[in-house]
Amino acid sequence: GAKALLVPVQPADIAEAIEGLPETMQAMAFRLLSKAEAIEVYENLDSSVQQALIEEFKRQELQDIVEQMSPDDRARLFDELPAKVVRRLIEQLSPQERRATALLLGYGSGTAGRAMTPEYISLKENWTVERALTQIRAMANASETVYYLYVTNAARRLTGILSLRMLVIGRPDQTIGELMTREVISVQTDTDQEEVARLIQRYDFLAVPVVDTEERLVGIITVDDVIDILEEEATKDIYALGGVQSGGDNYFQTNLLAVARKRVVWLSVLLVTNTVTAAIISSQEAVLQQVVVLAAFIPLLIGTGGNVGAQSSTVVIRGLNTAELKLRNALQVIRREAIAGAFLGFMLGVVVTVWAYFLQGNLAVAVIVGSSLVAISILASSAGAALPFLFQTIGFDPALMSAPFITTVVDVLGVLIYLNLAKYILGI
Amino acid sequence: GAKALLVPVQPADIAEAIEGLPETMQAMAFRLLSKAEAIEVYENLDSSVQQALIEEFKRQELQDIVEQMSPDDRARLFDELPAKVVRRLIEQLSPQERRATALLLGYGSGTAGRAMTPEYISLKENWTVERALTQIRAMANASETVYYLYVTNAARRLTGILSLRMLVIGRPDQTIGELMTREVISVQTDTDQEEVARLIQRYDFLAVPVVDTEERLVGIITVDDVIDILEEEATKDIYALGGVQSGGDNYFQTNLLAVARKRVVWLSVLLVTNTVTAAIISSQEAVLQQVVVLAAFIPLLIGTGGNVGAQSSTVVIRGLNTAELKLRNALQVIRREAIAGAFLGFMLGVVVTVWAYFLQGNLAVAVIVGSSLVAISILASSAGAALPFLFQTIGFDPALMSAPFITTVVDVLGVLIYLNLAKYILGI
Ligand SMILES: [Mg+2]
Ligand SMILES: [Mg+2]
Ligand SMILES: [Mg+2]
Ligand SMILES: [Mg+2]
Ligand SMILES: [Mg+2]
Ligand SMILES: [Mg+2]
Ligand SMILES: [Mg+2]
Ligand SMILES: [Mg+2]
Ligand SMILES: [Mg+2]
Ligand SMILES: [Mg+2]
Ligand SMILES: [Mg+2]
Ligand SMILES: [Mg+2]
Ligand SMILES: [Mg+2]
Repeated sequence: GAKALLVPVQPADIAEAIEGLPETMQAMAFRLLSKAEAIEVYENLDSSVQQALIEEFKRQELQDIVEQMSPDDRARLFDELPAKVVRRLIEQLSPQERRATALLLGYGSGTAGRAMTPEYISLKENWTVERALTQIRAMANASETVYYLYVTNAARRLTGILSLRMLVIGRPDQTIGELMTREVISVQTDTDQEEVARLIQRYDFLAVPVVDTEERLVGIITVDDVIDILEEEATKDIYALGGVQSGGDNYFQTNLLAVARKRVVWLSVLLVTNTVTAAIISSQEAVLQQVVVLAAFIPLLIGTGGNVGAQSSTVVIRGLNTAELKLRNALQVIRREAIAGAFLGFMLGVVVTVWAYFLQGNLAVAVIVGSSLVAISILASSAGAALPFLFQTIGFDPALMSAPFITTVVDVLGVLIYLNLAKYILGI
Repeated sequence: GAKALLVPVQPADIAEAIEGLPETMQAMAFRLLSKAEAIEVYENLDSSVQQALIEEFKRQELQDIVEQMSPDDRARLFDELPAKVVRRLIEQLSPQERRATALLLGYGSGTAGRAMTPEYISLKENWTVERALTQIRAMANASETVYYLYVTNAARRLTGILSLRMLVIGRPDQTIGELMTREVISVQTDTDQEEVARLIQRYDFLAVPVVDTEERLVGIITVDDVIDILEEEATKDIYALGGVQSGGDNYFQTNLLAVARKRVVWLSVLLVTNTVTAAIISSQEAVLQQVVVLAAFIPLLIGTGGNVGAQSSTVVIRGLNTAELKLRNALQVIRREAIAGAFLGFMLGVVVTVWAYFLQGNLAVAVIVGSSLVAISILASSAGAALPFLFQTIGFDPALMSAPFITTVVDVLGVLIYLNLAKYILGI
């Protein structure tokens, strides 16, 4: 395990301890914290516990904490609270914090504008290193980071960026303009938060500046929040692949009927596919009537096909989401996956043919099962590779959309291939 | 999109451009870079391109770059190269870099020791702020970060940590001992890299110190590498859920037969399940012979069961991997998922009963299909929730192991429930 030399008590640890308490004791425990601790601990609490504390606390105690929270954490909290409570809390904020909060809440959820914090340090080009250090000392506690410093002009436009590393290395009489980098990578307020995260990941930055449509600096997004964004996006993708809607809520807080209602949508979509498959099978009753054992292999064929398709689509979907695969690679990828599917189909087809023969003794049926598996594997891997690219192109989420369509292709076409091959070979 | 005010050319961008070139031109393009650029660009290249360049280049040119790479990036490169090449490259390193590389390569892959870099700044407790700043200026270029400073004693034990923020705020004559935090959170060289990443994510650190068994400071792991570790771990989990082995290789570089060989293992495991299901169905040929239409609903039942099971297991597996769910929650979670499965089963069961009646006109068969679906849903959601906990307990990867076992439970027990219910109700 991760062993600490000494185990200092961090706000995140206190928050977790409070979350583990019975609800009636959470407010009591929280009251034991000093004001400074309380703010940081509160920022680290689950939103459900944050809400519960708001309801428990007297107005003034709570208002002080909300006033001093980081604006980005505060915006995230307000997202979860009932509109009435938010209105009251906003009214009681100081003008400065109210402005900061209104700014962030003005941007859509999932955008850079919503995820940023306006608490950064800005410098002027004509300042000396010494003057800049004085400013940093004065602003250090009110700023999310002091390691990246942002240089703005009179119009609040971002003209340069400077790291504290460069500043500390510089001579006291050098000016910021001499030391700063003028080529700044920034994002817009409406940039998707996942894009911001990928940008920080790509360039190994600690923060990225956010500018508005007039290119004025309005905030920064820091790497600690980027980690949470990437985690959230990975969870969304994993959930989508598993057919679950991600709520962002605490697992145990969510109403079970609401959980079922969310999941049933997805299951209903897949049920349609299954009913089409069932209709096709039952329309071929005449074939099955004559050779009943054919029915025994249907789950095997479409099950294996589904698995082959899932393998291809998993690789393609993850590749698209981490930007390792691009749309322009589509044909190359589909070709590769189809060939891999053919290899897989032959390997498994041989095994299945032998096994099917031993199971029911009819060689013709065994060959029909084996060859169908080859065809279904190729079909599945091609569809598994192609459909995510298709959905990405037309602007749907590949992680969410691919599975039902791959299943439909594999199940419906798979059963048709199998039963028609059987009719043809067995001469029914 | 992420629009830059100006688009500066970052090493990551140059690396991507080079990767996009035909192989014959990659070395040519790389030669055009200045020495300083070349090192950073090289660190950002895919390992396959790094290897190709090593083969292209004359010994001296390349040796200079390898000498100046960050030790952690160098260790990652050596992991991928043939042992013979690595031996030659190590021999030609300077004694200091050779020692650093040998240290890192001495730790197992996936541990903190392997992922760390020994390039950090260490200070002494009795130094003044001024002396520390002088040291930082001298070491800035040879250190991965200057924002966290590590205080060690004569035995190289870690006694404190200090941020550059605190140092800059401090008075020039204050000592490091006065300013530093003595309660340091650190990890051991053998700590799993994913645990390190979760720790940095939890506490919002920019780096974490790594100590050896004698508690001497040996390196640090920085947040930029933590993002890559978390991404890699998320990919591993997504691949495991999709039945794909993660190779870490570039998609297009991997041999297709090797891809198929890796994937066939997983498909074979699932094939065993499918063959058991097929055997069970064919053993019930007598039932199917009498009511052939029963066969039409088998894919629907086990398909839907599989989807319900996948939803539950997805939530549980992701919860375990992000540490949102703990082993001690197991019973509570299984109970919740079973109830959700019951809700889902009833909702879908009603629809399916009606639909099955319209499809084939036999009410008894329709009721058998609908009630089986309720039973299978409960079974699937309970198994989907329980099995990941079980695998976590016995030390297997839940993401990898759960799917085949859930499928087996759902398919085998599902078919047995369905056909036996049919036998009983239809009196066959
Ligand atoms: Mg504030
Ligand atoms: Mg988004
Ligand atoms: Mg997004
Ligand atoms: Mg990176
Ligand atoms: Mg923040
Ligand atoms: Mg924070
Ligand atoms: Mg996404
Ligand atoms: Mg070095
Ligand atoms: Mg690991
Ligand atoms: Mg964090
Ligand atoms: Mg590194
Ligand atoms: Mg790096
Ligand atoms: Mg993992």
